[in-house]
Amino acid sequence: MRGRFITLEGGEGAGKSTQSRLLAAALEARGLRVVLTREPGGSEGAEMVRTLLMQGDQDRWSARAETLLFAAARADHVAKVIEPELAAGAWVVCDRFVDSTRAYQGASGIADADILALHDFGSHGLLPDRTLLLALPPEQGVRRATERDGTDADRFVSRDVSFHERVVTAFDRLAAREPARVRRIVATDGPERVAAAIMAELADLLP
Amino acid sequence: MRGRFITLEGGEGAGKSTQSRLLAAALEARGLRVVLTREPGGSEGAEMVRTLLMQGDQDRWSARAETLLFAAARADHVAKVIEPELAAGAWVVCDRFVDSTRAYQGASGIADADILALHDFGSHGLLPDRTLLLALPPEQGVRRATERDGTDADRFVSRDVSFHERVVTAFDRLAAREPARVRRIVATDGPERVAAAIMAELADLLP
Repeated sequence: MRGRFITLEGGEGAGKSTQSRLLAAALEARGLRVVLTREPGGSEGAEMVRTLLMQGDQDRWSARAETLLFAAARADHVAKVIEPELAAGAWVVCDRFVDSTRAYQGASGIADADILALHDFGSHGLLPDRTLLLALPPEQGVRRATERDGTDADRFVSRDVSFHERVVTAFDRLAAREPARVRRIVATDGPERVAAAIMAELADLLP
Repeated sequence: MRGRFITLEGGEGAGKSTQSRLLAAALEARGLRVVLTREPGGSEGAEMVRTLLMQGDQDRWSARAETLLFAAARADHVAKVIEPELAAGAWVVCDRFVDSTRAYQGASGIADADILALHDFGSHGLLPDRTLLLALPPEQGVRRATERDGTDADRFVSRDVSFHERVVTAFDRLAAREPARVRRIVATDGPERVAAAIMAELADLLP
């Protein structure tokens, strides 16, 4: 039986990595085989593209080159890891996926239809069975991420507040447009309460 | 006045690099400002993507991930080098461009319409003012390239003969379909005769 594909999304510092790990552990505790992965990256080739995307100056890439690099990394990740694992019955928990490109590169001026066309080309339009959107006010999230990363802040964290506001607005719009797939979870609560809210939103998918 | 954008195309070992240098020198001798560049690469970001594309195992990337990486590198090269130089009046001579993606990734099964759609997205569909296609039987070209590169042969040179036959056929088809832009030049002659044939095909563009 094909596994389920679950993604965690949200702006900076919303707790996606922590919640991805907690979710993977909770699913394993129910006897499921789980693959925990992330984007950009998640496969050997995609991790090399990640390095090009995350490091360097903010203007290292134009928004269009950046969007193509994300699509290339995702195509590799889907073909080499996500699809084979789903086909083999694993649940795949992924920290960021195409919705991040829609929010971040959308906030950089790229049309949603173009991003989805690239996703159709590279990854035959694969969408998650469910997406948990961790919602946090942008100033709070960027503060958390900056405290966490210090001078290692990547090309995206270090953008200005108005950019992060556009990202959070774009995520909220996706949740409003695709309510069956994308579930918005308030991430200001403690990690245990957020984890419980996530499991509640997955209840109908669990065996 | 906007400069002219000239590309050299063809299969492996057809003499594109040699002829690009000879052409740049001949144009400079006529008093033109010339920028000699190449793909994949040609800008700082695109050269980093080139390394990912050319090195490693043949199956390092799927044809779709590879096509997206070429489009990303090209978007950077066009935005950072080709367009600014053309706008500043330079003649840009480029060793390979989008026609190589159409021939090579086309030979890997990617539809020409998809490649052109990616080119529209990343590089607003920029096409050369003229393209010189250096035509050589595939066995002869691959033999030349293999003698030149030895064990440094890249991911493309090292593919099998039937792949290189499809590449050469795809290039010939482009020349047949777009005769005003793409001029086919027999590359079995010595370098000086090929260089003279190239200049003859550019006569109407020269000031």
